[in-house]
Order: sequence, then C-alpha cells, then structure tokens
Amino acid sequence: MKTNETKRARGQWISYRKAIKVVDCTLRDGGLMNDSQFDDATVRAVYEACVASGVDYMEIGYKNDKKIFSPDTYGRWRHCDEADLQRIVGDNPTELKLAAMADAEKSDYRNAIVPAEQSPLDLIRVAGYIHQIPLALEMVKHCHDLGYETALNIMSASVVAEDELEEALELFAQSEATTLYLVDSFGHFYPENVRLLVNKYLSYAKPVGKEVGVHMHNNLQLAFANTIEGIIEGANYLDATIAGMGRGAGNCPLELLLGFLHNPKYQMKALLPCVQDVIEPMRAELGWGFDLSYMINGFLNRHPRSAMRYNSLPKAERDITDYYLKTLTEG
Amino acid sequence: MKTNETKRARGQWISYRKAIKVVDCTLRDGGLMNDSQFDDATVRAVYEACVASGVDYMEIGYKNDKKIFSPDTYGRWRHCDEADLQRIVGDNPTELKLAAMADAEKSDYRNAIVPAEQSPLDLIRVAGYIHQIPLALEMVKHCHDLGYETALNIMSASVVAEDELEEALELFAQSEATTLYLVDSFGHFYPENVRLLVNKYLSYAKPVGKEVGVHMHNNLQLAFANTIEGIIEGANYLDATIAGMGRGAGNCPLELLLGFLHNPKYQMKALLPCVQDVIEPMRAELGWGFDLSYMINGFLNRHPRSAMRYNSLPKAERDITDYYLKTLTEG
Repeated sequence: MKTNETKRARGQWISYRKAIKVVDCTLRDGGLMNDSQFDDATVRAVYEACVASGVDYMEIGYKNDKKIFSPDTYGRWRHCDEADLQRIVGDNPTELKLAAMADAEKSDYRNAIVPAEQSPLDLIRVAGYIHQIPLALEMVKHCHDLGYETALNIMSASVVAEDELEEALELFAQSEATTLYLVDSFGHFYPENVRLLVNKYLSYAKPVGKEVGVHMHNNLQLAFANTIEGIIEGANYLDATIAGMGRGAGNCPLELLLGFLHNPKYQMKALLPCVQDVIEPMRAELGWGFDLSYMINGFLNRHPRSAMRYNSLPKAERDITDYYLKTLTEG
Repeated sequence: MKTNETKRARGQWISYRKAIKVVDCTLRDGGLMNDSQFDDATVRAVYEACVASGVDYMEIGYKNDKKIFSPDTYGRWRHCDEADLQRIVGDNPTELKLAAMADAEKSDYRNAIVPAEQSPLDLIRVAGYIHQIPLALEMVKHCHDLGYETALNIMSASVVAEDELEEALELFAQSEATTLYLVDSFGHFYPENVRLLVNKYLSYAKPVGKEVGVHMHNNLQLAFANTIEGIIEGANYLDATIAGMGRGAGNCPLELLLGFLHNPKYQMKALLPCVQDVIEPMRAELGWGFDLSYMINGFLNRHPRSAMRYNSLPKAERDITDYYLKTLTEG
C-alpha cells in the first residue's frame, strides 16, 4: 500500500493526473428513469454543456434492440440510430468524444452498430452481467473490429462471487477492450470496497496496459466519495451525470466531480446553467435521487427496481418500515 | 500509517468498535434553519426515536443567551431552560444521554447552566472559533466543575491556520474536556483532509486519554463518507442528524450512520418512522440539504450563510452562475 500512501502525501494534493478521463452518462443512465424519452433540446443542451465544461466523453444513450425496446414505448436514445445522432451532433467537430452503451443480449449489435468511420460515436461500452461475459467480449471484439474504442462494464459487481469475478478479469485482460469498469449497480459499496476492488481490477488491467473505470450509484450518498476513492487508487475513467440524474438514487454528480478535479480543462462553472435550467427541472417527474427506499436497497445489496416500484405507489400506500422488512425477508 | 492499513484488513470489516458513541444533533443543528422553533411533539418524537434506535447521546438544543437570542424570535430549544427539558424527558429514565451546546460569547453559561445533578443533561458541548478557545475552555471548566461531561468543538476547522490549530490542540489536551471535535462547518473537507486532521487531533488527544469526534456537513455530499473516514482513523464520537437535517446542506444522516455501524445496539430500522413521518415533512419549509449553492460554498470554503440568503430569494431572482462568480470574487 506504499504507493497509495505516497499518492496521499500533501505535495500532490493540488496537482492533477493527466490520464484521467471524465465520462458523462446523464442521458444513458437517466434514460432508465424515463424510457430514454428525451427531446432534442435536452440532448443538445447536455451535449453543449459537456463540450463547454471539458468533459472527455458523453454517453448519449443505448444501442439496444428495437425488438426488445419498442419505439412505441421507448424514446430514440434507447436505440441511438445514426440519423438521430447526426441530427444532434453532425460530425461532432469538438474535443468531446461520443459513446453509446450496448447491453449483452439486449443489443442487435451486428446490425445496429455501423463502422466507426460512418458514425460520430467513438466509444462503445458493452455492459454484461457476470454470466454474459463471453457474449459481452464477442460484442467488444465486433465493435473493436469496426474501429471503435471499447470498454467492458461488469454489472452488479457487489453480488459477483470472487472466483467468477477473477475469471472474468482474466478474460478481459486478453480481450480487445481497453477499459474495464467497476460498476456498483446496487449502490452497495463503501469506499473500502471500492479500494479493494479497484486494486483487484487494476492488478489485471495494468500489466497489459489497460485502464480501470468506476461507475457509482448514490444509494448511500457515497457515489462521489467512492469515485474519489477510485481516483486515489488509480482508476482513470470516471462516470458521472449532471445533477446525478440516473437510475434510482442516481449517480456521482458531474458538477461535484469537475469541481474536485484540478485539471484546468474541466470547467465546473460551465455546467451550472445546464444543472439549474435543464436537468434539475426534470427531477420532480423522473424522481431520481437519494431516499430511504434506495438507501435500504443499497444497504441490503438489492437491485433498485423494487425501490422504484415502491416510489411509484401513491403516498398513502407507502410505509418505509414495511418496505424495509419486506425487502429484508424477500432475500 | 501501518495501523490504518491493518484496520482496513478484511477480518475487521464485519465486527465493531465498542468505544464508538453516536451523537444525534438533529434539533440543535436543525434549529439553525428555524430559529430552534420546534414544538413539543417534534422534540418528543426525536427523543423517542433516539431511545429506540440505540443512539448514545441526543443534543436537544443550545444553552444560549436570551439577551442575544430573544424568546420573541427564537424558540425554546435555543435556550434549553431546565423546565422545558423536564417537560419533555422528565428525569430521562433511559440509556440515552442528553446534551446541549453552549456557544462561546453567546451563552450566559454562569447563570443558565445548573449543577448536573439538577438537570437531565449529561454533556455540555462548548463550541468556539479559534480565537475564542481560552473562553471556551473556561466554559468547559465551569461545566466540568458543575458535574457535566464536556466536549470542545473547534468551529470552522477548514479555515484555521495550522500553527494556531496546534496551539488550541495543546490547550485542549490540558483541559477538562474529554472529547475534541473536528467540525467541518463549511462542508469543505474531502476524506483525505479528514484523515489528516483526525490523525492530528488524535495525536494530542490519545496520549492524555481523550477522545476525538467528527461533525461533518454535506455541501459536497461527503458528510457520511467523511464520517466513515473519521471512524477508520479512530474518531469515536460521531455526530449525525435524522434525515441529515441541519444548517445549509445539512449533516451526516443518522439513518446512514446507524445502517453502517455493526454494533447490534444500533437499530436503523427503529429510526425510519421518525425520518418519514416527522423530519422529512419539514424539509420543504426548512430547506436544508445539498444543492448547487451549498456545493459552491463547500468548494470555495465559505460559511453557509451566503447560500442560505441566496436560497431565500424568489426563484426568478436566483441565477447560479452569478452566485458562483459573486461568491468567488467576494473572497
């Protein structure tokens, strides 16, 4: 642990690490609260805020299958058709790179993802649960061969058995993916857990020249703290969302992350109008953010969907003690 | 740093430290948002929730001066008259200890604080800014001689010069106070800062058998994370408030802290009805909790009062970019 203690010495507190990349995933993760139904003005506002604030990547939505996510129900940012991307960003003549997520078993990736030179997208992030890793890595290879940067997100890391995780990390190390994400889908991790797992992920990634990223949820009001812990331990890809918008308790707020990072290319101030005028006004309807039900799911290491159901009940039907006991006993 | 790394080993993750004491300060710190105007039903509900959930101390309000805080404006929990205390808790026939805070220069402590045997209060916490430490320690001695446990809170630690701080720590070590608090009044600290300062405070407290406490604010969504960091480093007195109610961005939420601690005497579940039915319904009117203006004050290391003023303006008069620039340039 010498290295970490050294990194923690005072001298490095006001400098910065150039290798760090900030990934905005406001619309991708936030789309889980409204079936990705964002109008063009919102998408454009987020894009412009990301450009203005010096964010490195913006994940604009999912490249998922219309047969599974019907356009009758889901908005266009669940599919990210090339025509929709072009309408918003054109050829994206900016420093900002664009990303989309493809979920294992939910993406018709062979047909929906065009060669990189024909798309404004730069990065495809492939997300899979532990049992889907072989498929996820086939998707990674496909996207890599099409010319994209690729990342692998192992979902719900807080419920993965250690031996299975290590097997997945070995497969990642041999794959085309250049970044591996520690994903706290259930918002269950304390900083200590992040420390242990980022170090484990890095022990596979570093020797083969790959990077580790962190994607944290705010069930325990620890998304920002866990992201800081990830930075300290050596994670260089950092997910965050504007106003923390995202599934359930939401994510690490991008404005907090940019305020923390000392690289002068990041401009927290340039993000403030988008937080205030575009994203915060959506909170009442979309309903993301820390509350007692998300906290309970975080403590008990459960998927946020049961808390989202609870929150959609009429207020008179909600009792938090009942919810706690039900969540506890439903194993 | 060996000790800390050892403490962080997996084996100790699911055990607990008996020396830890949880101090609820919901009504004391929350009283800064409503001039301590709590009705008896609310005070009783918090008292009962603290008893039920196994909290060690409840800080019920301030022992501050009626000449400075007129009863025409301020509620009775700004003064904590003995008759008011008795009306709520009687002789307090419970395991829960009771505390009140006395502010240096704002408390008529020689007249307002009666001998401990005539009061249900167990602990007087004396709060002072760095230039008030000699007076604060005189107040500590007075209360100690009256039979109370005493603690010293050095306010606004994030703006105290290191040499002055060290002088105050030496004075504390020689005083009657048994606990010294690291107080992040401006919500400015990252976990790294807490690590350094708790260790510094402990280096003065431990050799003379005294304890260190932490009192964190949530301007950067780090109040809980910073409290965890304090625990890891050896702080044994932990301040928290129900639903995080407190000045500005609020405090470390008590429900998160009790859910984190593994001592079975703490019952997070027993707190939930009070969060849901008593404290959360007050949020809209009192207006505590993380927002952009408190975040800005946290980043810029400023007292929360300017953000509280900003938040009290009509919505149409608020512009967060203007607020940021004004706060930045007003030094």
